[in-house]
Amino acid sequence: MATAAANRRVVLKEYVEGYPREEHMELLPGGEVSLRLTGEEPAGSVLVRNLYLSCDPYMRPKMSRPLRESYTAAFVPGAAITGYGVARVLDSSDPRFSPGDLVWGITGWEDYSVVKPPATAFLAKISHAGEGVPLSYYTGILGMPGLTAYVGFHEICSPKKGETVFVSAASGAVGQLVGQFARLAGCYVVGSAGSAEKVELLKSKFGFHDAFNYKEEPDLCAALRRCFPEGIDIYFENVGGAMLDAVLLNMRVHGRIAVCGLISQYNLAEGEKDAVRNLAAVIAKRLRLQGFIEPDHKHLYPKYEEWVLPYIRDGTITYVEDVAEGLESAPKALIGLFHGRNVGKQLVRITDE
Amino acid sequence: MATAAANRRVVLKEYVEGYPREEHMELLPGGEVSLRLTGEEPAGSVLVRNLYLSCDPYMRPKMSRPLRESYTAAFVPGAAITGYGVARVLDSSDPRFSPGDLVWGITGWEDYSVVKPPATAFLAKISHAGEGVPLSYYTGILGMPGLTAYVGFHEICSPKKGETVFVSAASGAVGQLVGQFARLAGCYVVGSAGSAEKVELLKSKFGFHDAFNYKEEPDLCAALRRCFPEGIDIYFENVGGAMLDAVLLNMRVHGRIAVCGLISQYNLAEGEKDAVRNLAAVIAKRLRLQGFIEPDHKHLYPKYEEWVLPYIRDGTITYVEDVAEGLESAPKALIGLFHGRNVGKQLVRITDE
Ligand SMILES: NC(=O)c1ccc[n+]([C@@H]2O[C@H](COP(=O)([O-])OP(=O)(O)OC[C@H]3O[C@@H](n4cnc5c(N)ncnc54)[C@H](OP(=O)(O)O)[C@@H]3O)[C@@H](O)[C@H]2O)c1
Ligand SMILES: NC(=O)c1ccc[n+]([C@@H]2O[C@H](COP(=O)([O-])OP(=O)(O)OC[C@H]3O[C@@H](n4cnc5c(N)ncnc54)[C@H](OP(=O)(O)O)[C@@H]3O)[C@@H](O)[C@H]2O)c1
Repeated sequence: MATAAANRRVVLKEYVEGYPREEHMELLPGGEVSLRLTGEEPAGSVLVRNLYLSCDPYMRPKMSRPLRESYTAAFVPGAAITGYGVARVLDSSDPRFSPGDLVWGITGWEDYSVVKPPATAFLAKISHAGEGVPLSYYTGILGMPGLTAYVGFHEICSPKKGETVFVSAASGAVGQLVGQFARLAGCYVVGSAGSAEKVELLKSKFGFHDAFNYKEEPDLCAALRRCFPEGIDIYFENVGGAMLDAVLLNMRVHGRIAVCGLISQYNLAEGEKDAVRNLAAVIAKRLRLQGFIEPDHKHLYPKYEEWVLPYIRDGTITYVEDVAEGLESAPKALIGLFHGRNVGKQLVRITDE
Repeated sequence: MATAAANRRVVLKEYVEGYPREEHMELLPGGEVSLRLTGEEPAGSVLVRNLYLSCDPYMRPKMSRPLRESYTAAFVPGAAITGYGVARVLDSSDPRFSPGDLVWGITGWEDYSVVKPPATAFLAKISHAGEGVPLSYYTGILGMPGLTAYVGFHEICSPKKGETVFVSAASGAVGQLVGQFARLAGCYVVGSAGSAEKVELLKSKFGFHDAFNYKEEPDLCAALRRCFPEGIDIYFENVGGAMLDAVLLNMRVHGRIAVCGLISQYNLAEGEKDAVRNLAAVIAKRLRLQGFIEPDHKHLYPKYEEWVLPYIRDGTITYVEDVAEGLESAPKALIGLFHGRNVGKQLVRITDE
């Protein structure tokens, strides 16, 4: 058996302003990597073979030159990009893991990674792959986006049967789940997405009651009024900007807005973010806007997994993935998120081995 | 005893765009009014002699041509302006009230009003005037602004001892109370106001730990960073616009914003409201923004009154009023709110009788 292998890694070349482009990243040879821990790593390190990488919108803010404190630190130019992924453990000095284990969590954009503490705190053992559950789901429905959708909808929005729910970026990793969770909760749910194909998917596959292509709507406020003549009780906010401003005018009294993401703003410079002007609605309609991030709610993962697995197995909940092949395709897959090129959860398959 | 008297009333002449001016209102003779109910009023009506009128910022949106549904209906041009006030009951077909009773609630900007159902639901008997409690307090600390400050701070902000609190429009009817309530709750509290005199008042009279004149600060974000090097846990939002945008950058993780009012926006047309651009902080810092209106919380009034009365009597809580003399001064007093002319709670004394 080989004791070493050649590594490759995707690095950020320079900090990004505006939209990220493929040239901002680079696939580099990563030298030779030992297939056993050498003993020189910090105690508690885990050596993994990366199998799937997750492309997530939050990675864009990490590509900007760090300005002020953020819950996510900036990437280090020249080092492998870090992000969520699924991997096989080759060796471990963390007693939670043994060689051969499958794990998901924060790893590197490379073939092999040594995950060191404290990042190892984000590694979790996978016990449910196979049995009708693709391993790649741990980048999506069974990973960070899944818990995000669950916490954001069930914990933050306090949905009640019969309420109306609007989801933006509704066909994506998080949005497609929020729509299905809302329908399961007995809500009336409408989604927006950026193409006719996605709109069709929302209605035919994810059970949205209605959907619209926001790029084809000259007046977002009117589109929302058409879909919600009585107004919106719950808005699951993934995009921000003009959509948020239009939603504010269409909320109902005592409505709730789970502020999950503002992807339309991630590529804009500080002073150039879109203006939100309709905040008077927050008072008149007694709205609650609640920001949240998934890492705060990790303790709910076991509860979520137990809840969602039967729905995956019996087909009640479906999950659409957009799989890019090979580590070399990762930069293009990531930047595609900001142009809506992904249909469903964007991930990268490095290998199945 | 006279059985009739001459009435006068302040009417809105026309709907207002931009800042309200005295010419938008007019003091008119109101004809002769019977000092007993005539029997022609709807059952449950209450005839009152108005003693004090309250000038409140929410009256400005009611002066605009009605555009879309709002929790406050627009004023009717030509009819007496309605608003909070303190009055003496002359006659009543509402069994809750008898001639001679003092009441506070929604009345008219006139010498005498017939308050009819459903507006009478907002009338409440005053049982604690005298005994060191000026009657006029029922336009302020013991009236709508008092309950607003109490609900907004204690119910919406969930304050904890040692937290940092920022209050805008801090010397006003609501703000001066929020500052004192925050201090009583063991918080560190800073206020902003629009003149050196008000800033001095905040520190010397209301117990704010620190205060600044926002009109003299070229960079609101920097002013807040100076006052809150560790950030803001609670923002009691009275003004909106640029101040909100600066506050968002200075909030701490898990901070709360009670959205009480946006007075800086009330005189701006729909499309011209100030841009808020820093909403990304809502996610990064997991902020909660909660809008509220006082009428939703009327049931808490008895609890609030019982809590605050001893503090008023023993001087723990103080209240500064700005009293305009005579019904004829009401228009000027009201528009003064939007130029910061009031120092403390703006009210109008019609008569003491
Ligand atoms: N708070 C948290 O813990 C947390 C965790 C995970 C994700 N998030 C946030 O949740 C949101 C969705 O994430 P996801 O992983 O599910 O991504 P995704 O929806 O799978 O992919 C991003 C999608 O956003 C849409 N989009 C891109 N630019 C846009 C723009 N300018 N305006 C409107 N839509 C735009 C595109 O779809 P269209 O074709 O529809 O435009 C694109 O496909 C993001 O904002 C992300 O940051 C937050
Ligand atoms: N949600 C509710 O139920 C409820 C109930 C009552 C009041 N409110 C709101 O609470 C806020 C305070 O009301 P209040 O009765 O206590 O009024 P107030 O503070 O006594 O009077 C208004 C004050 O606002 C300040 N102001 C005016 N224009 C401004 C601007 N462009 N930018 C910044 N500050 C400005 C002025 O003080 P400076 O000298 O400091 O500029 C002025 O004295 C208002 O927004 C009001 O609508 C809400």
